[in-house]
Amino acid sequence: MRTAIATVCLSGTLEDKLVAAADAGFDGVEIFEPDLVASPTSPGEVRVLCRDLGLSIDLYQPFRDLDSVDPGRFAASLRRAERKFDVMAELGVDRVLVCSSVGPDAVTDDGLLAAQLTELASRAAARGLRIAYEALAWGSHVNTYEHSWDVVARADHPALGVCLDSFHILSRGSDPAPIAGIPGEKIFFLQLADAPHLSMDVLQWSRHHRLFPGQGAFDLPAFLRPVLAAGYTGPLSLEVFNDVFRQADPGPTAVDARRSLLALAEATALAGAGARASAVVADPVAAPAPVLGGHAFVELLAEPAEAVRLGGVLASLGFVRTGRHRSKPVERWEQGRARVLVNAAGTGGAALGALAVESADPPAAALRAQRLLAPLLPRERGPAEADLAAVAAPDGTPLFFARTGDFAGGWSSDFVPDPDGRPAPAGSGVTRIDHVGLSEPFDHFDEAALFYRSVLGLTPVTAGEFAAPFGLIRGRALTDDARSVRLALTVARLRRGDWAPAVADPQYVAFATDDVVAAARRARDAGAPLLAIPDNYYDDLAARYELEPRDLATYRELGILYTRDDGAYLQVGTQLLGGRLFLLLVQRLDGYDGYGWADAPVRMAAHRRNRLVRAAT
Amino acid sequence: MRTAIATVCLSGTLEDKLVAAADAGFDGVEIFEPDLVASPTSPGEVRVLCRDLGLSIDLYQPFRDLDSVDPGRFAASLRRAERKFDVMAELGVDRVLVCSSVGPDAVTDDGLLAAQLTELASRAAARGLRIAYEALAWGSHVNTYEHSWDVVARADHPALGVCLDSFHILSRGSDPAPIAGIPGEKIFFLQLADAPHLSMDVLQWSRHHRLFPGQGAFDLPAFLRPVLAAGYTGPLSLEVFNDVFRQADPGPTAVDARRSLLALAEATALAGAGARASAVVADPVAAPAPVLGGHAFVELLAEPAEAVRLGGVLASLGFVRTGRHRSKPVERWEQGRARVLVNAAGTGGAALGALAVESADPPAAALRAQRLLAPLLPRERGPAEADLAAVAAPDGTPLFFARTGDFAGGWSSDFVPDPDGRPAPAGSGVTRIDHVGLSEPFDHFDEAALFYRSVLGLTPVTAGEFAAPFGLIRGRALTDDARSVRLALTVARLRRGDWAPAVADPQYVAFATDDVVAAARRARDAGAPLLAIPDNYYDDLAARYELEPRDLATYRELGILYTRDDGAYLQVGTQLLGGRLFLLLVQRLDGYDGYGWADAPVRMAAHRRNRLVRAAT
Repeated sequence: MRTAIATVCLSGTLEDKLVAAADAGFDGVEIFEPDLVASPTSPGEVRVLCRDLGLSIDLYQPFRDLDSVDPGRFAASLRRAERKFDVMAELGVDRVLVCSSVGPDAVTDDGLLAAQLTELASRAAARGLRIAYEALAWGSHVNTYEHSWDVVARADHPALGVCLDSFHILSRGSDPAPIAGIPGEKIFFLQLADAPHLSMDVLQWSRHHRLFPGQGAFDLPAFLRPVLAAGYTGPLSLEVFNDVFRQADPGPTAVDARRSLLALAEATALAGAGARASAVVADPVAAPAPVLGGHAFVELLAEPAEAVRLGGVLASLGFVRTGRHRSKPVERWEQGRARVLVNAAGTGGAALGALAVESADPPAAALRAQRLLAPLLPRERGPAEADLAAVAAPDGTPLFFARTGDFAGGWSSDFVPDPDGRPAPAGSGVTRIDHVGLSEPFDHFDEAALFYRSVLGLTPVTAGEFAAPFGLIRGRALTDDARSVRLALTVARLRRGDWAPAVADPQYVAFATDDVVAAARRARDAGAPLLAIPDNYYDDLAARYELEPRDLATYRELGILYTRDDGAYLQVGTQLLGGRLFLLLVQRLDGYDGYGWADAPVRMAAHRRNRLVRAAT
Repeated sequence: MRTAIATVCLSGTLEDKLVAAADAGFDGVEIFEPDLVASPTSPGEVRVLCRDLGLSIDLYQPFRDLDSVDPGRFAASLRRAERKFDVMAELGVDRVLVCSSVGPDAVTDDGLLAAQLTELASRAAARGLRIAYEALAWGSHVNTYEHSWDVVARADHPALGVCLDSFHILSRGSDPAPIAGIPGEKIFFLQLADAPHLSMDVLQWSRHHRLFPGQGAFDLPAFLRPVLAAGYTGPLSLEVFNDVFRQADPGPTAVDARRSLLALAEATALAGAGARASAVVADPVAAPAPVLGGHAFVELLAEPAEAVRLGGVLASLGFVRTGRHRSKPVERWEQGRARVLVNAAGTGGAALGALAVESADPPAAALRAQRLLAPLLPRERGPAEADLAAVAAPDGTPLFFARTGDFAGGWSSDFVPDPDGRPAPAGSGVTRIDHVGLSEPFDHFDEAALFYRSVLGLTPVTAGEFAAPFGLIRGRALTDDARSVRLALTVARLRRGDWAPAVADPQYVAFATDDVVAAARRARDAGAPLLAIPDNYYDDLAARYELEPRDLATYRELGILYTRDDGAYLQVGTQLLGGRLFLLLVQRLDGYDGYGWADAPVRMAAHRRNRLVRAAT
């Protein structure tokens, strides 16, 4: 499997982009013309630079508006093309992307169009070059892949083939299956991009909102299969125009990009791509997605005094300290199947230190993560001494793999049991970790979603957006089929500026309970710093739902947030725990499968209020 | 004229928003329900808070999905409404906005719909309240103002009227003129919003991209006139959902918002709104937009050593030092009608210190700016001692008003003439300041455009977007009809993060010349630090245009950027001058009226390269 990336996917100068692509392990690049034009590096020097970086140059692109009903304009296009052929010769690239024309003078007679393409292809062939003709979704006349193939077939020139771009094809809702009928050797190039479903002008959608495969809503394996079945053997190449990626550090973005191709190849192979495909997408990841057993633990990290307070909060929520680490300032707290490590080696307020999931085969899961370009973390980085493998998530959070069911015998044996520490009996309060809420850095939201999706084999089941007090928030939640591991990712829709208070983007751990009212009451009576929710919220709740007055009074008394929508969800939160972290007790009723985002703005305003009150006293 | 603003326009908690609205001078507010629901302040306390802040509460909003073909759901809506009437009574507001329904159960029989609205209006009337019914542009059945008025007229209940929202009406392309035929007393409320023309789902367009009047593409005066002609006498109220405003400091945003209404009222009055309108929009600004005579000067600010270097660069561009300030470390440099003050009182690298425009009546222009909520700057803030009035632009840049033609007798007399300083004769190089390029802070781009538009009476003639090496850039240029003052505003489409180098968003001053080749050659020979432009750019230029080989060679030799598009534009830039500032020499041919944005990415990459080279040596 050969992977390539168009330089337009990445931020920076041409030189920045080439280095990032090489560092991420790409085999080749498409050179996006404006990147070259703005570069002080000559085409010949770019050729040498790519060779030295181990990158092939697979495509030069784009050449726009070739054909014209105006012979003078077409002649000018040919002159322009000859100049670009000069550049290609210096670069040492033999394929150029020619887009269908978008001008009012685009040729509408397919015979004439084929003739003009043939003329270009002949000139290209004379110099050992080839033309990959692509239908832009908004082309004036040619805007479907079927039409571009018709014209190419009609021209029937050996130096003329089609370029297939998943965005242009899937954004129009075209069926990719007939691609299998195009002779593979006439598919000169393949460009891959995903995108969210957006109801907007297709050009704007294409130029700003493309994503790497697996980050959007397109079915890329279903697109790739017929391309491979046709016999395409070229590189899998990414062409993604995305406003966020265009301004983000190209290093991580290139890794994210390459991970998307590895995951796509795996998904395509798993879906049965057929024998012809095997050379292209064979086995890039090898280890199958792990079978998860649930959240093994979360680690909370704080400076020592804050860590003591964290322990107190956990105790008030019904957790029991069951052990202390043999050699590190780490305590183990448990309740039901929920396990929390409190690590006092932090330097600031409370924050999420690490995630850990149970898997049937931790070494295989870690190997898979590495194959998917997750950096393996050095041993000393972890809270435990047992042989726990850990990789770094895109935001740097360590992700541990623990063996399912091997809680006591495995990593947990690093802890000296607390003499008084018997975990509270299951069912009396918290039963397990329901989910972890991760607020992601602005540049890495889609990357994080793809990371967890591919590395843990999770499915993105919930996506949403809500208006919070300090700006809009996007949310995306992933889970396994058994709902044993849930991650709720959020990001500010716009990168935070000076106005947003520190409380705007907290992380949290949500603990499941079968009786949130009892759990919240017990926590309150034990002195838990529960978050006060305004009366106005409950007045609105009374207007929206016909709740039992007694239930409403109970929710009001305890600060329980209630939302109903294919089931009901009750949540009660703590105040912010000295940093950007809070804890939640949650109860799901009647199959509720969401994350209570409708109530998140109320909680965020309450956290803001809470912080202001603390600051004033 | 009474002005109001919906709390949803602003960022923060309800309390933050109310304070910001009051500080900006609004008379009233619309309370957006989610803001109240998330607030710990009870409705009664909000009533008191608003009274103490001098704000009326003009509207409670929104009440959604009232009508239903399902009698049970309609009964539930009425119960919900009664609870909201309770809240309104506590708030002391008598008007509630009811949106047309968007559900699949929306009533499609206008008779039944009128009956359901009448039932609600009767209940409201019994409590002294009124219903303002609004057609959402995406309502299931009612989605035009004509339809909402038909239903209201059919219901004919004294407590039922329409709410008109400019977005819902203009986004659909509806003609607002017939609004004049609605009885004024049945227009219960008026909501104003502008928006850019976007080809996207109208709900998404509405929820994310609304702007304050004068910032978008809608003709708001043409909308407001028939509303006032109908006899509407209520407040002019803003309801703007905008992703940027929702996360920006609400203080400046509220000022920006109120300025938009003042400018709209002026524009509406100027366009002849008729006698009935005068009470609503009379004379909010008083002083007419200034007649501009051109850029009077720009001030460049730097720490002393950098200021000396700046003087050297100006000299190499053909400027002559013509004076030194009597009491401040400021030098005056001139060439043709271009005047530059170099102020050595800065603390860092070179930056734009102030702008100054010539106007026929500077005190009147300053008074107008103040009426438009521009803060008057204290006298000592300015570079000159003569009685130059200055106000602060949204980004803090001082904007001075100098008397047209009074250059020598006015502020310039603060300078002691340089004995050797005779300005170079006109026509030999720089003739005047062509424009100033202002890179705006992310949160204040639309605010800045409205500020210059209203305060200086400029027209936004050019808008664009380009993909630069470190992310997309939006541009918007404003000018007077005579093109004597031009400002080119730019902003990063996404707020800059860690990856963007400091060079990503520089400011600049562009000096006009009638012969950029001669000016550039002389500058180069005089040692000006001209920016090197890559050969690749000129190879591309040769492919795109059939330029004379000699011209192409000259452009290549001197680093002149060339773009053609309704005329041609030639520009040659300096390197970054020790900070985030550079200078340009520009020549406009054949009526070119733009700003060369197509070449900006090349220039930005060259500045990046330039900085890297400097850092390495």
